[in-house]
Amino acid sequence: RRRGYPEAVFCEGKSPAHLRAIATALLERHGGDPAPDVPRTLFTRADAERAQAVLDVLPDALHEPEARLLAWPPTPPEPTGGLVVVACAGTSDLPVAREAELTARFLGRRTELVVDVGVAGLHRILARTETLRAAAAVIVVAGMDGALPGVVAGLVSAPVVAVPTSVGYGAAFEGLAPLLTMLNACAPGVGVVNIDNGYGGGHLAAQIAAPRRD
Amino acid sequence: RRRGYPEAVFCEGKSPAHLRAIATALLERHGGDPAPDVPRTLFTRADAERAQAVLDVLPDALHEPEARLLAWPPTPPEPTGGLVVVACAGTSDLPVAREAELTARFLGRRTELVVDVGVAGLHRILARTETLRAAAAVIVVAGMDGALPGVVAGLVSAPVVAVPTSVGYGAAFEGLAPLLTMLNACAPGVGVVNIDNGYGGGHLAAQIAAPRRD
Amino acid sequence: RRRGYPEAVFCEGKSPAHLRAIATALLERHGGDPAPDVPRTLFTRADAERAQAVLDVLPDALHEPEARLLAWPPTPPEPTGGLVVVACAGTSDLPVAREAELTARFLGRRTELVVDVGVAGLHRILARTETLRAAAAVIVVAGMDGALPGVVAGLVSAPVVAVPTSVGYGAAFEGLAPLLTMLNACAPGVGVVNIDNGYGGGHLAAQIAAPRRD
Amino acid sequence: RRRGYPEAVFCEGKSPAHLRAIATALLERHGGDPAPDVPRTLFTRADAERAQAVLDVLPDALHEPEARLLAWPPTPPEPTGGLVVVACAGTSDLPVAREAELTARFLGRRTELVVDVGVAGLHRILARTETLRAAAAVIVVAGMDGALPGVVAGLVSAPVVAVPTSVGYGAAFEGLAPLLTMLNACAPGVGVVNIDNGYGGGHLAAQIAAPRRD
Amino acid sequence: RRRGYPEAVFCEGKSPAHLRAIATALLERHGGDPAPDVPRTLFTRADAERAQAVLDVLPDALHEPEARLLAWPPTPPEPTGGLVVVACAGTSDLPVAREAELTARFLGRRTELVVDVGVAGLHRILARTETLRAAAAVIVVAGMDGALPGVVAGLVSAPVVAVPTSVGYGAAFEGLAPLLTMLNACAPGVGVVNIDNGYGGGHLAAQIAAPRRD
Amino acid sequence: RRRGYPEAVFCEGKSPAHLRAIATALLERHGGDPAPDVPRTLFTRADAERAQAVLDVLPDALHEPEARLLAWPPTPPEPTGGLVVVACAGTSDLPVAREAELTARFLGRRTELVVDVGVAGLHRILARTETLRAAAAVIVVAGMDGALPGVVAGLVSAPVVAVPTSVGYGAAFEGLAPLLTMLNACAPGVGVVNIDNGYGGGHLAAQIAAPRRD
Amino acid sequence: RRRGYPEAVFCEGKSPAHLRAIATALLERHGGDPAPDVPRTLFTRADAERAQAVLDVLPDALHEPEARLLAWPPTPPEPTGGLVVVACAGTSDLPVAREAELTARFLGRRTELVVDVGVAGLHRILARTETLRAAAAVIVVAGMDGALPGVVAGLVSAPVVAVPTSVGYGAAFEGLAPLLTMLNACAPGVGVVNIDNGYGGGHLAAQIAAPRRD
Amino acid sequence: RRRGYPEAVFCEGKSPAHLRAIATALLERHGGDPAPDVPRTLFTRADAERAQAVLDVLPDALHEPEARLLAWPPTPPEPTGGLVVVACAGTSDLPVAREAELTARFLGRRTELVVDVGVAGLHRILARTETLRAAAAVIVVAGMDGALPGVVAGLVSAPVVAVPTSVGYGAAFEGLAPLLTMLNACAPGVGVVNIDNGYGGGHLAAQIAAPRRD
Ligand SMILES: Nc1ncnc2c1ncn2[C@@H]1O[C@H](COP(=O)(O)O)[C@@H](O)[C@H]1O
Ligand SMILES: Nc1ncnc2c1ncn2[C@@H]1O[C@H](COP(=O)(O)O)[C@@H](O)[C@H]1O
Ligand SMILES: Nc1ncnc2c1ncn2[C@@H]1O[C@H](COP(=O)(O)O)[C@@H](O)[C@H]1O
Ligand SMILES: Nc1ncnc2c1ncn2[C@@H]1O[C@H](COP(=O)(O)O)[C@@H](O)[C@H]1O
Ligand SMILES: [Mg+2]
Ligand SMILES: [Mg+2]
Ligand SMILES: [Mg+2]
Ligand SMILES: [Mg+2]
Ligand SMILES: [Mg+2]
Ligand SMILES: [Mg+2]
Ligand SMILES: [Mg+2]
Ligand SMILES: [Mg+2]
Repeated sequence: RRRGYPEAVFCEGKSPAHLRAIATALLERHGGDPAPDVPRTLFTRADAERAQAVLDVLPDALHEPEARLLAWPPTPPEPTGGLVVVACAGTSDLPVAREAELTARFLGRRTELVVDVGVAGLHRILARTETLRAAAAVIVVAGMDGALPGVVAGLVSAPVVAVPTSVGYGAAFEGLAPLLTMLNACAPGVGVVNIDNGYGGGHLAAQIAAPRRD
Repeated sequence: RRRGYPEAVFCEGKSPAHLRAIATALLERHGGDPAPDVPRTLFTRADAERAQAVLDVLPDALHEPEARLLAWPPTPPEPTGGLVVVACAGTSDLPVAREAELTARFLGRRTELVVDVGVAGLHRILARTETLRAAAAVIVVAGMDGALPGVVAGLVSAPVVAVPTSVGYGAAFEGLAPLLTMLNACAPGVGVVNIDNGYGGGHLAAQIAAPRRD
Repeated sequence: RRRGYPEAVFCEGKSPAHLRAIATALLERHGGDPAPDVPRTLFTRADAERAQAVLDVLPDALHEPEARLLAWPPTPPEPTGGLVVVACAGTSDLPVAREAELTARFLGRRTELVVDVGVAGLHRILARTETLRAAAAVIVVAGMDGALPGVVAGLVSAPVVAVPTSVGYGAAFEGLAPLLTMLNACAPGVGVVNIDNGYGGGHLAAQIAAPRRD
Repeated sequence: RRRGYPEAVFCEGKSPAHLRAIATALLERHGGDPAPDVPRTLFTRADAERAQAVLDVLPDALHEPEARLLAWPPTPPEPTGGLVVVACAGTSDLPVAREAELTARFLGRRTELVVDVGVAGLHRILARTETLRAAAAVIVVAGMDGALPGVVAGLVSAPVVAVPTSVGYGAAFEGLAPLLTMLNACAPGVGVVNIDNGYGGGHLAAQIAAPRRD
Repeated sequence: RRRGYPEAVFCEGKSPAHLRAIATALLERHGGDPAPDVPRTLFTRADAERAQAVLDVLPDALHEPEARLLAWPPTPPEPTGGLVVVACAGTSDLPVAREAELTARFLGRRTELVVDVGVAGLHRILARTETLRAAAAVIVVAGMDGALPGVVAGLVSAPVVAVPTSVGYGAAFEGLAPLLTMLNACAPGVGVVNIDNGYGGGHLAAQIAAPRRD
Repeated sequence: RRRGYPEAVFCEGKSPAHLRAIATALLERHGGDPAPDVPRTLFTRADAERAQAVLDVLPDALHEPEARLLAWPPTPPEPTGGLVVVACAGTSDLPVAREAELTARFLGRRTELVVDVGVAGLHRILARTETLRAAAAVIVVAGMDGALPGVVAGLVSAPVVAVPTSVGYGAAFEGLAPLLTMLNACAPGVGVVNIDNGYGGGHLAAQIAAPRRD
Repeated sequence: RRRGYPEAVFCEGKSPAHLRAIATALLERHGGDPAPDVPRTLFTRADAERAQAVLDVLPDALHEPEARLLAWPPTPPEPTGGLVVVACAGTSDLPVAREAELTARFLGRRTELVVDVGVAGLHRILARTETLRAAAAVIVVAGMDGALPGVVAGLVSAPVVAVPTSVGYGAAFEGLAPLLTMLNACAPGVGVVNIDNGYGGGHLAAQIAAPRRD
Repeated sequence: RRRGYPEAVFCEGKSPAHLRAIATALLERHGGDPAPDVPRTLFTRADAERAQAVLDVLPDALHEPEARLLAWPPTPPEPTGGLVVVACAGTSDLPVAREAELTARFLGRRTELVVDVGVAGLHRILARTETLRAAAAVIVVAGMDGALPGVVAGLVSAPVVAVPTSVGYGAAFEGLAPLLTMLNACAPGVGVVNIDNGYGGGHLAAQIAAPRRD
């Protein structure tokens, strides 16, 4: 792949049959016992039925149902570069947060997950300051008011990748509210990706934290 | 006035001549040396020209140009009820914050103003926790990401009146972004008023903090 | 809980298994026969399946299916502070109105429900003026044109908490229309919460009507 | 004119020179002392400069600066059909209300104007019930929350023509808020026209109240 | 009923049990063989299940499944006033058009339905000019581009009631596109109601075409 | 120029000095008496001040103030291909219609302008059917309800290029209403360009009507 | 059909019974073995159930499930005019792209499909330049960022018909994002149709590429 | 400053007097001949009048009028970390692009500016591939269709910071169109900041390209 990163297959619009075909092509290219340096392929946004289609062909693939993600070969590459920390406020945002974390890990970064840090309880965020400051890139996932990335950006000097989610109701307008909040974050240093785009957030953070030779 | 609160004249759509007529009617009703219990009248959103029109007739009116507000008779009533604290992040939100504070004061509350407390610098907010907790109602004024009311609501048990402002640019969409943020605040206890509606925020907070006989 | 109010579990994004785990943790913390001063926990926006998951573990929990709410321990605390009146126009808004009322009651307020008072029949609202004026805080729940809170705010001097609902169709735009109406209410003294946010409206009103020591 | 009603010239996008040419054509067609049954021409949304351009050519034209309207020949036709009542809450909506009233009158209806009847003070509307019920069509003009037409429609059995205005600020979104309110009016019998479209509202009401031979 | 028109029960948010209760109350009030002058009750937006609930109690009610409407007693009153013509472009808009027509008929008007008259085939509209001009009120129902009401308003001098529908896809945005088109109709004399609001359109047209004593 | 068409300079964001520099570069490249086959350059959206800046350097440039357009060398190329007809309803849309027409002419097409053909007066459009049918491409420019392109597309079999304009007010929302109408046109064969984009509409029509060798 | 093109039946809002009736009418008009010059009828947006309804009556109809399209008689007319090329980035946009291609073919054009040419891999588009330049009209179908039509328009001098799709999630807002992108395409020569409107795109391109006699 | 980066003063909402006070405070803190390691202060979004206010007090400040930016002390720090490349399509986006570049430089990065690389002329972008690939972070500034960042992200493996601008008209909706395009960019590795936020884009890129010790 041109830019040195794993290929990702977006499963949402594809039929199980189509996904089985993609998986079969992978299997044929690399064989059932692929070399350790075979590039990883990610299958993102795979519901149970689509995940099963991939597993039919690649039974040893890693499958994280909560993150709706599969990876094959199933082990991430040896990590290089800086640490990627993923933070979110609660269980509702976890699927997107985990998708981001796994993506960053399969792009070759060490990752750490920090949950239960909402802006309505500042002490919980402040208690995790050290972890957040250890990161080369912080991914912050938030729905509803989307205020967390701006607060985190005020605490760290590393770039913050903000991922708005569609969690919430009413005037959250399917993620529009947190998206706007993040674009207007008072602290500089926040880059925003699409609503619910855990994959994109993980990818960008992995690029930011990549080993560099300036 | 039916509900026991001062009358407010919204100056924005009115001509200077019209405002002079309103001021003259007031003067004629109460005389040039009004009794101390004469109900106060507020003139809101008065630009320089409109303020001058009011002052032409009522030269002793209180005029706060930054808040675009006039009051006559110029002294607020003796305060009763609980304290109203008004908080905002910086100088850009001050006109609306001051409009809110003065309105609450002229409705009969003690008020205190807390500025320079943005979410990108949590220590500044935390340093003011005691003041915030002393309030019977907290008004939080914020533009851009509008994250401050939710953070404050997490710190106090009194109701928070959130006033979004049109401060910001681009995806702040003239105050839409902070409005949505506030409606989606993660902490409960936040009631939102219209964008830039310092008058409405001050009025609501004064009602909340009014003396009560349950 | 930090601010002295019950904890609320938002059930919508959570699996039944997850809710059973939360309920089990509660049971383990307080035992099957909890002391009278055990803080109440609310489970909000629980559909039939999620409600059953909670009841599996806490069979004596209060369950109000219309309001999609459960509470445990099942009795509200002894009421203190002022009266909270909840008003709405008809049966369609009742689920949100009841959610608001129960929340206020479990936060420790006396509550009263006033239904069938739409703006298209003013005599019905006017007939309830006395009840509305007895409140320390009035919650007004309305969909479609959302005009009721402004009308009520013109009748009472207590604060009005306005809860827009997604009831309606077409240009109601899932609650956007009543939300905007309420933010633009002609009478001051209206604080708005998120669309369909009965819990938030009840919480805010309970805070407003809380016993106070100014 | 095809449908039997006066021609209207929308002045907003036209240059004074262009308007002078239109006025001159009128003058040439009907002469300086036109017959009583000459069809009236309305010039709508004419600011001072454009009004003067028309008056340069037709000095005896009726000019109502507040309504930004001119009419020539300057007297309305002898009224026929039913009464058109125009209602609004205050001075800010008067320009649109007057534009509506004058349009209806120049289309041949008797008209009456009812001002200062906002929803925040129901007694004022109720005090005018008799006048409202005398109408064959009621035009209700309102900005901000736009709640008045629905309230009036609940009081009368004649059709209500609702004209939203751009009066207000913030979440009024240049008239979007009252427009949506009116489209969602709880009482049936409300037909809505464009924001600030006093001319259109007056025209529709005049058609509704036209003499009829069923 | 206060304004002399039938009551309408909006079925969409109501349970079958609730509708059976409403129907039973009706039956008890008027008996199984109601007098000819008993006021009609309409049940609008009733899907199959809800319609059956009404029919369980009132088996002789008129049921028009396409219009999702029931009426009881099942015969409309003797028509008075002017003719109401309902026009639409095709089969997709028929449910709303029929709901409008039946509402107008049960409010006591003669009605006529004109279908298959889209703006992309002007000759078909022009061929129906005579019928359209016979109306005291024309209801025009249209989705997608919503251009038909403006074209019809240019052909007739009676008022046009425009009903936008959610028919269409993509940039029709659930009826927003035709709604805006109708509000901006080039010809005056168009009053707009809510998207898909056939009931409201029929009601307004019936009021416009009501017998009048000026 | 790569694709064989004239270069266009969008003047709106450029300073007069910058435009003089661009004009000077042109003059230097082609000399003051350019060969007949020198490619034409268009200056679009030039207000008076910017137009003067171009004329300072290229005094013989064609300048059409109404269309805010300049062209140099000032004569269009010898026309080839099919006829481009530009249609609009009235004077307000003329600047955009003329910009479209001149662009098409300077791209080498014969053009014809048809004005005063609104949908509220069908006979006027029908009277021009022959001209419209002679076109290889029809450009239809319309603001407000934007209904004209769909009506024209129903009359001709050539492609229709629809140009929405910001003409109108209120719910026209700066051209959004006609834009949506055109995208939802009932007749197929309509391609839409940006609001007020006369240049783009003229360019596309010229490409459609270009001489072709299939 | 008036304009010489096949009739299209939009199946989405129609019942299977209704479609069977339409198909039966066709069969009766042309017989089971129609003459070669019988005009083709297209059935668009037919899901499995609706397609089967058509096939019940016209078993020899062409059915392309992916494009949700049927055609009868099943063979396209002999091609005339120029080539229509349809381009899209990937499998998700294929249903719309195929609908466009088949429509153009049944309107009488030669067509070619170019897939897998996204803007994130320029070499793939550039590799197809020759094909794109052979077209008399290019249809570009794209969701998400919708950037492809502008890139293609920069490569060819033929008109580009841009079809936005609802492919994507979050801030793609059901196709709004690519729609806006296409309306703002930097290269001139792009005409936009409705979101997911493959039929409309194919129709317009077929008209553009039609044989012409200037 | 907490995070080691220069302070920035947002001038837009501040009065000249206020800015002079800020500048005076700086001067007093650091003296007229500040030490080389004094932290730089940026004044962003300063129009001519506000820039002059700063220069009145700090006459040796760097002032870039096009970027509306001032810096004091006027020389950037010695660069460290990786290269930041700023790319944009043309002169209209230059003010924002230069603001981004200068911000990155004053945060301590080497920078390079690449202009005139629009997506409608791919060869120009491709010709700059080497420069783009030399960057540790690429800032791409674009208005109108906002397609450039996605194209660039497909060419480089470094992170892309996308800055939408309000350049354009009509359906660009003040920058909304390019903002949505960028959030939906097909290539991963794009982080988006607020519309016209050159300062934020420069800041984020400087953080990404900062020297790192993993
Ligand atoms: N700044 C303001 N924002 C919102 N409402 C206001 C404001 N000032 C006054 N009002 C309300 O507007 C009413 C007066 O409006 P008017 O009669 O137009 O001056 C007062 O009774 C207030 O309720
Ligand atoms: N289809 C409808 N669309 C809009 N309003 C309706 C409709 N049907 C009934 N209504 C209105 O809703 C009221 C009854 O509401 P409800 O009490 O909820 O059944 C009636 O008085 C009507 O004014
Ligand atoms: N009025 C216009 N509207 C839209 N695009 C235009 C307009 N005029 C010129 N353009 C395009 O903008 C490009 C030139 O932009 P610029 O280099 O900023 O002058 C031209 O190649 C045209 O494609
Ligand atoms: N052009 C800008 N756009 C967005 N944020 C900015 C800009 N300039 C400064 N800021 C931020 O605004 C803060 C200063 O705001 P203020 O105190 O109002 O001057 C700085 O700390 C920056 O983070
Ligand atoms: Mg930071
Ligand atoms: Mg709190
Ligand atoms: Mg009140
Ligand atoms: Mg009524
Ligand atoms: Mg008419
Ligand atoms: Mg056509
Ligand atoms: Mg091209
Ligand atoms: Mg890349």
